[in-house]
Amino acid sequence: MTVDADLVDRLERLERRVRALEDEQEIYELMASYGPAVDSNSREEAARLWISDGIYDVDVGEWRGQEAIASMLGEDFHQTCLASGCSHQVSLSKVAVDGDTAVATGYMGLIVRDGETFELRRQTVQRWELVRTEAGWRIAHRTGRLIDGGPEARGLLARALD
Amino acid sequence: MTVDADLVDRLERLERRVRALEDEQEIYELMASYGPAVDSNSREEAARLWISDGIYDVDVGEWRGQEAIASMLGEDFHQTCLASGCSHQVSLSKVAVDGDTAVATGYMGLIVRDGETFELRRQTVQRWELVRTEAGWRIAHRTGRLIDGGPEARGLLARALD
Amino acid sequence: MTVDADLVDRLERLERRVRALEDEQEIYELMASYGPAVDSNSREEAARLWISDGIYDVDVGEWRGQEAIASMLGEDFHQTCLASGCSHQVSLSKVAVDGDTAVATGYMGLIVRDGETFELRRQTVQRWELVRTEAGWRIAHRTGRLIDGGPEARGLLARALD
Repeated sequence: MTVDADLVDRLERLERRVRALEDEQEIYELMASYGPAVDSNSREEAARLWISDGIYDVDVGEWRGQEAIASMLGEDFHQTCLASGCSHQVSLSKVAVDGDTAVATGYMGLIVRDGETFELRRQTVQRWELVRTEAGWRIAHRTGRLIDGGPEARGLLARALD
Repeated sequence: MTVDADLVDRLERLERRVRALEDEQEIYELMASYGPAVDSNSREEAARLWISDGIYDVDVGEWRGQEAIASMLGEDFHQTCLASGCSHQVSLSKVAVDGDTAVATGYMGLIVRDGETFELRRQTVQRWELVRTEAGWRIAHRTGRLIDGGPEARGLLARALD
Repeated sequence: MTVDADLVDRLERLERRVRALEDEQEIYELMASYGPAVDSNSREEAARLWISDGIYDVDVGEWRGQEAIASMLGEDFHQTCLASGCSHQVSLSKVAVDGDTAVATGYMGLIVRDGETFELRRQTVQRWELVRTEAGWRIAHRTGRLIDGGPEARGLLARALD
């Protein structure tokens, strides 16, 4: 029937739009999980935000695979921050979903307690390259670069503008 | 008719998914209202983000009910921050909705003007326990703990990781 | 048929709710684009977030039209921040959509590298008055006021509380 065909068509379009909104929401949920995981010293949970062979490429080092990422979080730099009291602040990000992959670009601040106040110790650009898995969106390759006036952080930001 | 039964079923599933997205959006809207309310010294509006007997449990004190919360915002600590120029920065948060209740976990920074620059005076973990009311989502119990390297802030974060 | 009329009605209501969610998401996407544009020195892209005769009204100056905004971003203040390494952090915001216009109210921090750490140089309230265009949501008039304890920043925040 004509009416039903039209209804089915509208319903299908709407289902695709809702799926797109859910993708965006799930990606934000993933990004909002990073801070709570690392700042509670939940190293395995943090590493599982990546796919098993996912990459975390930062200006201070590169780690490949969940085991390497979890192990890095057990080392001195992060453990010293945790002992002082630290939080990782992931910003609003520009998200572009393309089928089963997505890129989110924004910032992350590392805030560490310093006596009676708090210090913004590192401020980086973050590029999250994500993939849809059966367990939901996960990080395939994440790049972080210190915002130091040089070309690397700026380049990551520029790539987000189409 | 078979076709209609299928359509109704798809429509119902879609309505539930849209309701879930709206819940998440309304909860973010609530959290985004806290800063504008307290930083404009709108103490009654801030208190009305809680249910009438809602609780605000912070490391520096605990307040029960809208009246107590509004009254606390009139006291020296907050009024001195306001006079200097302050803003409360609520972060992206991990939100889990379960029927008519929800929990959101993230961070809040208290930024206060200090001469020619701004100081991050307090950085806390925030756990927002929310309830759906006829007027929308409201705070039933909100817990804030200073990120000082101790177990309390970390514990709140860990609870957000299922 | 009765069943179909009911289905069409439910579908239409759902389409309106999905459109409202998409509006909110697109507005957040616009706000999340400002930092990546200005912090990568992409001055034209930043200016195109405004409509052609859009206004950027800040406590330190007012610029009218995309050309004036792009030109201001080429001047000393912003270029010096860029050379040190800067990021513009747009916060969660309270968004109210009314047909083809919208208002979003929140905060923005300007973070600049300062030796081995980062300084929060300016913290402002931001009121984004937006319009729906054929190319999506754009800024018609954006107001930023330093959070200095005075009435202007507070007034912008209070206007967001209905």
